[in-house]
Amino acid sequence: MKNIIEAVMLKYQSTLETNLQKNTPEFHVSFNDQVDNDFNTLFKTLPSNRPYFAVGVPGSFHCQLLPEASLHIAHSSYALHWLSKVPPQVMDKGSPAWNKGKIYCAGNDKEVTKAYFAQFKADTDAFLKARAQELVEGGLVVVQIPGVPNSKGVITEEKLDSFNLALYLPSIEEVKMVVEMNKCFTIEKIYTLSHPSNYDSRPLDIERTCADIRAINENLMQDHFGSENMDQLFHLWGQNLRKNRLLYDKVVRQDVYHFALLKRKGKGNII
Amino acid sequence: MKNIIEAVMLKYQSTLETNLQKNTPEFHVSFNDQVDNDFNTLFKTLPSNRPYFAVGVPGSFHCQLLPEASLHIAHSSYALHWLSKVPPQVMDKGSPAWNKGKIYCAGNDKEVTKAYFAQFKADTDAFLKARAQELVEGGLVVVQIPGVPNSKGVITEEKLDSFNLALYLPSIEEVKMVVEMNKCFTIEKIYTLSHPSNYDSRPLDIERTCADIRAINENLMQDHFGSENMDQLFHLWGQNLRKNRLLYDKVVRQDVYHFALLKRKGKGNII
Repeated sequence: MKNIIEAVMLKYQSTLETNLQKNTPEFHVSFNDQVDNDFNTLFKTLPSNRPYFAVGVPGSFHCQLLPEASLHIAHSSYALHWLSKVPPQVMDKGSPAWNKGKIYCAGNDKEVTKAYFAQFKADTDAFLKARAQELVEGGLVVVQIPGVPNSKGVITEEKLDSFNLALYLPSIEEVKMVVEMNKCFTIEKIYTLSHPSNYDSRPLDIERTCADIRAINENLMQDHFGSENMDQLFHLWGQNLRKNRLLYDKVVRQDVYHFALLKRKGKGNII
Repeated sequence: MKNIIEAVMLKYQSTLETNLQKNTPEFHVSFNDQVDNDFNTLFKTLPSNRPYFAVGVPGSFHCQLLPEASLHIAHSSYALHWLSKVPPQVMDKGSPAWNKGKIYCAGNDKEVTKAYFAQFKADTDAFLKARAQELVEGGLVVVQIPGVPNSKGVITEEKLDSFNLALYLPSIEEVKMVVEMNKCFTIEKIYTLSHPSNYDSRPLDIERTCADIRAINENLMQDHFGSENMDQLFHLWGQNLRKNRLLYDKVVRQDVYHFALLKRKGKGNII
């Protein structure tokens, strides 16, 4: 939030000479997450002297969540790789895309990858259409999404402790393709960056990593395995991480993420 | 929500002949509560087919919570009698308003009542100023607040299981006085109505009443008594209610609540 507000204020001050009559802008921040996630803790940990008004928005970011033309900047951080559902073909024994014996899109089965990418494409298009409704003309979308460094999409089973996760790590070409198909936005900037953990040289913090992984995955895993197994499961995960910390650390540091800055085109072109 | 949306739609349709070019209005509802209260449950229980966009707003309703002129209707239901703090005089042994031996404004000590009313006046004025900032010109405030049926303000100790609660039940004259002092609103309607429980003839539901009372009071009481006593305390409260259900029911049904509809005057008159 701090970075975005500072950037907007800088931009605003640089155009102030032609806007002398205006006051300092007010910032109204809408935080969205899955409805299963913990908004109570978010609300309690918001700084009390924050320079913005804050609200929490329940609901799926694949749908419109705010009134038309009520938003200036949307920021999606590490969220778009979560799909709205597991592609049905990969669970269908009769389909060529049946993901037999695997619990994730491992990238080495073309039909499975195709099914996962089709879901990613549909979901990201729905995300962009929803934001296009909410944004004013010329409004911005900033997307950060973990991805794969090239279009091959190879992900090893060891890389994620996963179980048919509704998750897809796209290549940057795939991200571009989906935005262009959607037609509501121009791409102002798009890069692939290396994983944030490469920017600090600290060793892997086992406790924190376990807590992070649990925060992200617990609700999803409860749906599959029931809530009574969670303590044991994350305890085992922590033990495995302790044994294999170097392997995990090395794998994570090979990850990339994509950054995209999109600008809302003129209205009236939503399909 | 249903009533408000239906009322607005009716009003909107009745003026439609002069607004033919407009589409159906979108509704954007901001739910506010104490930050200690449970927004997670609220978000999970919102109907999925609701005809409005919903957000949760953390923070005190005594402060501005939304950007300037971004709100059309504010609805405060059973909230304004909760004060921002216990008036400091009632806890000061040297003050004529020291509330010795009591744990609440019992209404029969003039100095204590004066101190509580002063706090109510300051808090309600802060509430009205905050809403005046948020509302558009001509925007509406609807207030429902439990109160006392005349200006004497007599509340027995038995009436509430209380412990220096930051709580004040005003008379309707006191509500009017505070709105007039504030100067931002015209009073469109103001009534005193009898307690909602008088509208149904069902007997007191002990379990539900206990759950309601716990939901309202638990966070406040934890600050005083520590969280480890809560189960026992509310168990005892339930036992007492079972023994005295007729007394409790009769007392509650004597309560009144005040209803006020206020309209935002032209801007520029906030003190």
